[in-house]
Amino acid sequence: MAEAVVVNNKQVVIKNYVSGFPKESDMEIITSSIKLKVEAGSKAILVKNLYLSCDPYMRLLMRSQGSDLFTPYPPGSPITGFGVAKVLESDNPEFKEGELLWGITGWEEYSLLKSTQGLFKIEHTDVPLSYYTGILGMPGMTAYAGFYEVCSPKKGEYVFVSAASGAVGQLVGQFAKLFGCYVVGSAGSKEKVDLLKNKFGFDEAFNYKEEPDLNAALKRYFPQGIDIYFENVGGKMLDAVILNMRIHGRIAVCGMISQYNLDQPEGVHNLMSIVYKRVRMEGFAVFDYYPQYGKFLDLVLPNIREGKITYVEDIAEGLESGPAALIGLFSGRNVGKQVVVVAHD
Amino acid sequence: MAEAVVVNNKQVVIKNYVSGFPKESDMEIITSSIKLKVEAGSKAILVKNLYLSCDPYMRLLMRSQGSDLFTPYPPGSPITGFGVAKVLESDNPEFKEGELLWGITGWEEYSLLKSTQGLFKIEHTDVPLSYYTGILGMPGMTAYAGFYEVCSPKKGEYVFVSAASGAVGQLVGQFAKLFGCYVVGSAGSKEKVDLLKNKFGFDEAFNYKEEPDLNAALKRYFPQGIDIYFENVGGKMLDAVILNMRIHGRIAVCGMISQYNLDQPEGVHNLMSIVYKRVRMEGFAVFDYYPQYGKFLDLVLPNIREGKITYVEDIAEGLESGPAALIGLFSGRNVGKQVVVVAHD
Repeated sequence: MAEAVVVNNKQVVIKNYVSGFPKESDMEIITSSIKLKVEAGSKAILVKNLYLSCDPYMRLLMRSQGSDLFTPYPPGSPITGFGVAKVLESDNPEFKEGELLWGITGWEEYSLLKSTQGLFKIEHTDVPLSYYTGILGMPGMTAYAGFYEVCSPKKGEYVFVSAASGAVGQLVGQFAKLFGCYVVGSAGSKEKVDLLKNKFGFDEAFNYKEEPDLNAALKRYFPQGIDIYFENVGGKMLDAVILNMRIHGRIAVCGMISQYNLDQPEGVHNLMSIVYKRVRMEGFAVFDYYPQYGKFLDLVLPNIREGKITYVEDIAEGLESGPAALIGLFSGRNVGKQVVVVAHD
Repeated sequence: MAEAVVVNNKQVVIKNYVSGFPKESDMEIITSSIKLKVEAGSKAILVKNLYLSCDPYMRLLMRSQGSDLFTPYPPGSPITGFGVAKVLESDNPEFKEGELLWGITGWEEYSLLKSTQGLFKIEHTDVPLSYYTGILGMPGMTAYAGFYEVCSPKKGEYVFVSAASGAVGQLVGQFAKLFGCYVVGSAGSKEKVDLLKNKFGFDEAFNYKEEPDLNAALKRYFPQGIDIYFENVGGKMLDAVILNMRIHGRIAVCGMISQYNLDQPEGVHNLMSIVYKRVRMEGFAVFDYYPQYGKFLDLVLPNIREGKITYVEDIAEGLESGPAALIGLFSGRNVGKQVVVVAHD
């Protein structure tokens, strides 16, 4: 039996739990080694990581306290996240050597994945592989589930999306436009606002940082009120949106990125308006909708191929650029979906 | 043609908009006069008011600012609210002289009701007439709609009700027990807690005023978490409940009585937990469910007659006692549904 090859494995390790705004120095790049061999009977697969996804929820795993959805990263270990990887070795009948997949992997060059649960085989490679960290992966499914399943949209409804140029928001807006809704997005720079209007086809967009009174801004963009709010930010924006919802409006709560670096989240004061307007506000988690991934691909792939849906990525080259790319999410540095390239193939 | 009889008409008039905690002196009793005659062609009905209902939402009509649901009471006018009345004269084919009804009427001895929209004929009089201000009226329908329609309960689920001995809460708890759920209620005195456990059959109950840490109290009563929360109070209680919801839990938001006397509502900080737990939180208004009133009566009337559902009222005698009874809701003075008797027949 041939001796297994042992190679260097660069990793992004979290040094300790993080409170407040995360810094690059909360993580470090180390080099360990890994045996390029899967133990027989282990059902594990060994993968080479190609693209890693920077997602806001990862901040919640840097806390000392977990939640029902999130178990904290153990300090001293490589962080994990969604990624695209190539199978190098497999002891699992579901995946064969050379196949491509997306799902949770490590922030490192090679990962030994002990379970294949939550991993999806990549069957369509005529689109950029990195898309499986975004439009064709978890963020895409999140936009799909939140907009179609949670919000039950109707043609002609008024839709507002916050963090609208991000990995999820840009898709929600495009889904809503394709569906025949009126869509306004908010983002944090002129460049992003231009993107929303000129590239993603939002009807309107505004820079929330230039709006001292969010309630007034929303009244300006939605004089008739909001039917559907896709919530990505929380805090003051949510409070202002609630005041502007229409009767029987729906709020899909995907995340609240503005709150993740605060020790004590901001208070939301206007909840009584969800009674006045009979609003449904619903938190959701993408994995509850994973069984619909096939249906989702059937909807999205043709739209990508025909250029009816577009996707903007912000690509950081090299695993070393990972920590800066990840923390950049929280200052809004990225324009579009933030991806880290570990290797191109 | 006979001259119409003109009689004195005692009324409860609101003097001005109210901010902060309402006082008896915000209202006054005046005596005006009314012609006991309905103009031909007016489609109006003239009623003698028998029972008036004190409901928390009435506080919201005392504000200067309205909302989509509530138009403020005009200062100097008699207030309005749900009541049981007898038809004295009718120009409307839907109601005949001598018939009984419930719906929105004035806080006065006699009211000229210009529209019959939202008025329900009382067909069953083998139960106390005052019940049509409560268990068989708007609060009963509210409990029914919120529990069955908004919360979609499943047998064996864990249900929490705040303001649980009130007009709505006592019913929600009993509906939940009949349905096969585990039910805990909170209230503001030992007497009310005893009522919940001994009269209404709640599995457990506690006095929220004696719980310095509501989160800890809820963890004690729901070590496995809460599937359904029937929200009547808002503020700190809601914040604590959100932390204790189970995955895919539901919160029916009926009202937030703890917030109605505040100029600036308290902030709710834990909303991110509705993502962690994939919770649905839904505001509702009873009148959206009025078409189901017949179905509701079919469920509730037999249960009342067989003694399977019980209802506790706090009866104030005389229109003069109205202002004190109404403001008593906000200090929790009432034990059970607060009713004002204007006349017994």
